Amino acid sequence: MPQFLIDSRNIQGNTTTLTGNEAKHLIKVLRYKKGDRVFLSDGQYQYVSVIESLSGKTVNLKLLDRKLLQKAAPSPILGISLLKHDHLELVLQKGVELGVGEFILFISERTIPHYHESATPKKLARFEKIAMEAAKQSGMITPPKIDPVISFEALVKNFDGFSGVMLAWEEEKESSFNTVFQTLDPTKLLLIIGPEGGFTKEEVALAEKNGAKIVTLGRQILRAETAAITTLALCQYELGNL
Amino acid sequence: MPQFLIDSRNIQGNTTTLTGNEAKHLIKVLRYKKGDRVFLSDGQYQYVSVIESLSGKTVNLKLLDRKLLQKAAPSPILGISLLKHDHLELVLQKGVELGVGEFILFISERTIPHYHESATPKKLARFEKIAMEAAKQSGMITPPKIDPVISFEALVKNFDGFSGVMLAWEEEKESSFNTVFQTLDPTKLLLIIGPEGGFTKEEVALAEKNGAKIVTLGRQILRAETAAITTLALCQYELGNL
Repeated sequence: MPQFLIDSRNIQGNTTTLTGNEAKHLIKVLRYKKGDRVFLSDGQYQYVSVIESLSGKTVNLKLLDRKLLQKAAPSPILGISLLKHDHLELVLQKGVELGVGEFILFISERTIPHYHESATPKKLARFEKIAMEAAKQSGMITPPKIDPVISFEALVKNFDGFSGVMLAWEEEKESSFNTVFQTLDPTKLLLIIGPEGGFTKEEVALAEKNGAKIVTLGRQILRAETAAITTLALCQYELGNL
Repeated sequence: MPQFLIDSRNIQGNTTTLTGNEAKHLIKVLRYKKGDRVFLSDGQYQYVSVIESLSGKTVNLKLLDRKLLQKAAPSPILGISLLKHDHLELVLQKGVELGVGEFILFISERTIPHYHESATPKKLARFEKIAMEAAKQSGMITPPKIDPVISFEALVKNFDGFSGVMLAWEEEKESSFNTVFQTLDPTKLLLIIGPEGGFTKEEVALAEKNGAKIVTLGRQILRAETAAITTLALCQYELGNL
């Protein structure tokens, strides 16, 4: 269900042209043909267009309809532990699609990957590339910010900067996402997901003492990356963005 | 946030033993130590346990608490197009974690992978392996069924077998998941997600004529696999399973 990102300066009257990777993707990967309908976005408007002609590297489109993108409800901020393998990359990609406003990466007691300071800039550059690609796919002009990696304690010290904080924990059995969400001011929500091994009791106590609400994500135990994607989907649903 | 699957026959009094891959995963991958708390499940009960001792290949655990797993609301059934790369595998893994009752794989007009009949058994065997691993991770005894690949038309002909059918489409702008969900009998819900290139207008019209409700997943366009995971999360949330 693709949407192609255009620069509004490339619109002339009711036509526009796609080139470069966007065109290649449309032609080679998705195999669109003349007459097919294509969704475009310049970040402010969403356009319905139809392919008038296409060559190897260029797609000429006629704009049929234009709609002002509604201002969405405030974007949640995701605080996520570094994760093993490519799981964090999956969370970044899906998080961008689901409209995360900002990513805060942290290391808690059971976090498995610990980047050396020297490796961090390279890792962050890769994360930013993933976020950029996901943003393009979703029709955003700029991807959300990915902050440098901090300690869980540093994150907790910063709770005052948010309107509300929710932390998902597999040992919590009572407080559902739904119940807790209703009690929070959603203006600048921070959602926190721990590492594969979960948070320690002490970390959860520290977060709670500093104002976080602890929630369960049901009786099935979700992997860390699934918990992150699910929490974001539920938050956007409650905010009316889904 | 792992949970380990045990066979209830391996419980003796208030102790049990993990061996094989489960033990290896706990020791080598998650690096659990003596005294750490571990969640176990035999499919009927969930146990909180603590590690009493562990050697290279065996973990001895003391059971601290046991809770009858609540009977969850009916599981949704996911109808999903074959997807490119490993995207279908991601949907299967996350779908199992999120409690899908059954997977129906289909080929619609814009589906990109088309397995030859001879390749299908091998592919299905791989899909079943992924589902089995995800089930173990989530503490289920048996993974959901994955049906053989059918055509979209065949799926539509079978709509009568479900209590309600929802199909997510990026060209739908009005009917939200929330609005539509309230109108459906959730006993045996079928959720349908199309291929990367989306459904054709004709396919959507055919589905709608046969009783499917068409829904939007918000103004950001989600990748097919993200749409599948998101729809499942929302459905389980509405069913009270999350």
